Amino acid sequence: MKKVLTLFIALLVSTIAFAQQSLWGGGTLVSPEIHENNTVTFRFRAPKAIKVQVTGDFLSNPSVADLKEGPEGVWEYTTPEPLAPELYNYSFIVDGLKMPDPSNIYLIRDVSSLMNVFISGGGRADLYKVNAVPHGTVSRLWYDSPTLGTTRRMTVYTPAGYEKSGKRYPVFYLLHGMGGDEEAWVTLGRATQILDNLIAEGKAKPMIVVMTNGNAALEAAPGESSLGLVPPTTKLPKTMEGSFEAAFPDVVKFIDANYRTVKNKSGRAIAGLSMGGYHSLHISKQYPDLFDYVGLYSAAIWPGKDVESPVYKDMEKKLSVQFAKKPALYWIAIGKTDFLYKANTDYRKLLDDNHYPYTYYETDGGHIWRNWRIYLSEFVPMLFK
Amino acid sequence: MKKVLTLFIALLVSTIAFAQQSLWGGGTLVSPEIHENNTVTFRFRAPKAIKVQVTGDFLSNPSVADLKEGPEGVWEYTTPEPLAPELYNYSFIVDGLKMPDPSNIYLIRDVSSLMNVFISGGGRADLYKVNAVPHGTVSRLWYDSPTLGTTRRMTVYTPAGYEKSGKRYPVFYLLHGMGGDEEAWVTLGRATQILDNLIAEGKAKPMIVVMTNGNAALEAAPGESSLGLVPPTTKLPKTMEGSFEAAFPDVVKFIDANYRTVKNKSGRAIAGLSMGGYHSLHISKQYPDLFDYVGLYSAAIWPGKDVESPVYKDMEKKLSVQFAKKPALYWIAIGKTDFLYKANTDYRKLLDDNHYPYTYYETDGGHIWRNWRIYLSEFVPMLFK
Repeated sequence: MKKVLTLFIALLVSTIAFAQQSLWGGGTLVSPEIHENNTVTFRFRAPKAIKVQVTGDFLSNPSVADLKEGPEGVWEYTTPEPLAPELYNYSFIVDGLKMPDPSNIYLIRDVSSLMNVFISGGGRADLYKVNAVPHGTVSRLWYDSPTLGTTRRMTVYTPAGYEKSGKRYPVFYLLHGMGGDEEAWVTLGRATQILDNLIAEGKAKPMIVVMTNGNAALEAAPGESSLGLVPPTTKLPKTMEGSFEAAFPDVVKFIDANYRTVKNKSGRAIAGLSMGGYHSLHISKQYPDLFDYVGLYSAAIWPGKDVESPVYKDMEKKLSVQFAKKPALYWIAIGKTDFLYKANTDYRKLLDDNHYPYTYYETDGGHIWRNWRIYLSEFVPMLFK
Repeated sequence: MKKVLTLFIALLVSTIAFAQQSLWGGGTLVSPEIHENNTVTFRFRAPKAIKVQVTGDFLSNPSVADLKEGPEGVWEYTTPEPLAPELYNYSFIVDGLKMPDPSNIYLIRDVSSLMNVFISGGGRADLYKVNAVPHGTVSRLWYDSPTLGTTRRMTVYTPAGYEKSGKRYPVFYLLHGMGGDEEAWVTLGRATQILDNLIAEGKAKPMIVVMTNGNAALEAAPGESSLGLVPPTTKLPKTMEGSFEAAFPDVVKFIDANYRTVKNKSGRAIAGLSMGGYHSLHISKQYPDLFDYVGLYSAAIWPGKDVESPVYKDMEKKLSVQFAKKPALYWIAIGKTDFLYKANTDYRKLLDDNHYPYTYYETDGGHIWRNWRIYLSEFVPMLFK
C-alpha cells in the first residue's frame, strides 16, 4: 500500500506534463528567457506555422519581430540589445493570429485585453518585483455607498506589521483610469510590490492604500459582480459626470470606520491615472478639507461641456479655496507625447496665473502604464512626511 | 477646452476597440454565448485557418468538436444539447495549436495550465456565481512559520459582517492539491462564491476560511514570491514527507492571534483535496485536539514507503487516539473513477474494522475540480452545527 504515494506522484506528474504538452501546443519550452545581460529570448513551438512573430512594448520601431524556425518546430527570437529595466508586455502573432505565449502563465488584463508580461530587472524595475522583504496584506472587500445606492468592491493594501502594531496609519486613495477597475493598480500597476519595497527601503512611510472602483455604474471588476462572467463594458454610463466624485466621502467614511487610520487631512492623499487623475483633481477641490496630498498622473482635466454636475461648478472658485488651505503637495506628472499634454499645460497655466504652488514631473512617452508605475514610485516617497 | 473630455473618451474608446480588434485577432465576437436554454455557442475569428476545434470538459466523447467557418472568417460551434449546470473549461485548437478564446477574458490557472472558463447556470452551479448577496472579504497575507523557517503567503476569507460584528468565528482550514497553491480554492474552487452563497441562504454558519500554501518548499503561489515570474515548479522537495503537517500548528497559532476566532476544537475544521486530503488526514491525527471536523476530498491516504517523518509513525495508534476523542464529523468523499478510489476503499475498511465512525459521500467522475466544488458545497453546511 505504501507504493500508492509513488504511484500517486507519478500519475500527477504525468498528468501535469501532459497538460503542459497539450495546452496551447506548449511543451516545456522556456519563454521568455531573460539572459544575464538582459537580452531576452522568446520561443514558440509550432511545426506547422508559416510565420511566427512577437509584438510588445519592448519593441519600438518596427513593433513586430520575426521568430526563426529551428529544430522540432521551435521558433525563436532574441533581442539584439539588452532590454532596459522594466515590466514589459508581449504577444505572439502566428500566421496572422495574435495569441499569448503558452510557456508563460503570467498574463495581465488591461481593460479588455490580456497580455503576457515579464520583468527585465535592475534599476527602478526592482521596485516592481516581489523581493524578500516584509509584505503587506492585500484585501478585496465590499463597502456600502449610500450616495450611489450600491454595495461596491475595493482593494485595500495594509503595510507589513499593520495587524499587530496597534498604530494608526495614513491613507493613500489611488484611482484607476477609464476601462480599469479596482484590480488595475495591483496588477499592471504593481502597487503592492512598489509599496512593499519602498517601505522596506525606508523610502516611504508605512501607509494604507485604498483602490476603489471608479466606475459609478459598476459594483466591481469584470467577473466579480452579479453581472457574471461577461465581457468588460467599456462604454459606461455615469462616467466622468460627477457621480463618483460626489460619492467619494462614502469611501473615506468606510475606511476610517474599519481601519486604524489617521483621521485628518494631513493623513490623507489622493492620486490617480488618466480618469483617476481627473477624479483626484475634482474630488480634492470639491472636498478641500479631506486631502493634503494630491497627485494627477496623465490626468484628464476639464469636464465635458454638456456635463451638469454641481461637482464641476465654479471650478476656479473651488480651486482658490483648495489652494488657500495650502495642500502639502499638489503634484502633476505627464509624458511628453501624452494626448492630454496640452490639457495639462493649459491647467498648469491656470495654476501659474493664480500663483497656486504645485510640483511638476515630466517624462518621455505617453499615456502608458510604464509612466504610471514611475509616477507611483516617485509620488509615494513624498507622502506624509 | 471643454471639448477635451469628448476627445478623451473618443480616443480611449478607439484605443480599447483597437486593442480588442488586434489582440489575439479577436474583435467583438461574443464567445462563449450561453443561450437561454443552456446550449452554448463558441466563436473564433480566423479567416486563414484550415481547421478550428474546441476542446473542454463540457465535451465527453469525442472530447473535441469542429467549428464551421461562416462569413468573414468567423468559425462557430453550438452544443447540440443544453449543458448541465456547471463551471466548465475549454480551449480552441487552431490548425493543431491549442489557444485560449480571445473573446473571453476569463482564464484560470490550474497548476501550470491556463484555461478559459464559463458557467452554465442553474442548480448547484448557482453557488459558483457571484450573486447579489452580502460578500465576504478575501485577503492575501503573509505569516511567519518558525517551524519551516520561512515567511509564507495565505488566502483568508472572512464572512460578510466580520469587520463590524465583534463576534468570534469558527475557522475552516481548506487545503489544495499537488501542484496547487493558496490561490487554487478561490479560483477554480469558487470557495468565495460558495461560502458567500451558502451563508446568505442560511445553509452554512458564518466562518473564516484559511487557505494556506501546502508546498513546504515554497513561500507562495507562482509569481507571488521572490522567485519571480518563473514557470510553476511541479516537482517539489518536501512534498508529502511530513514537513507541512508538522508545521501546521504555526498556521493555527497565527490565525488565532490575528482573527477573532473560536479558539478550540469545536470551532475548527480541516479539509483538502487530493494531497490536501492527505494533509488533512495526517494533520488531524497528529494533533487530535485541534480539529472537530475533518474532510478528505479525493484524498491520498498512505505515505510513501521511504518516507521517514514522525508524522506518519504509528498511524493506527494515532487514529485510535483521534477517534477516541470523537470528532464531530469525519467525512470521506471520492468519485467512482478516481485513481485513488482503491486507496480510499482500503482506508474505509481500516476505519470500519475499528468501528471508527465516518460519513461517506460518493460521486460519479474522477480526480477533477467539478467534484471538489461539489464536495466543498456539501461539506460546509455540516460544519459548526
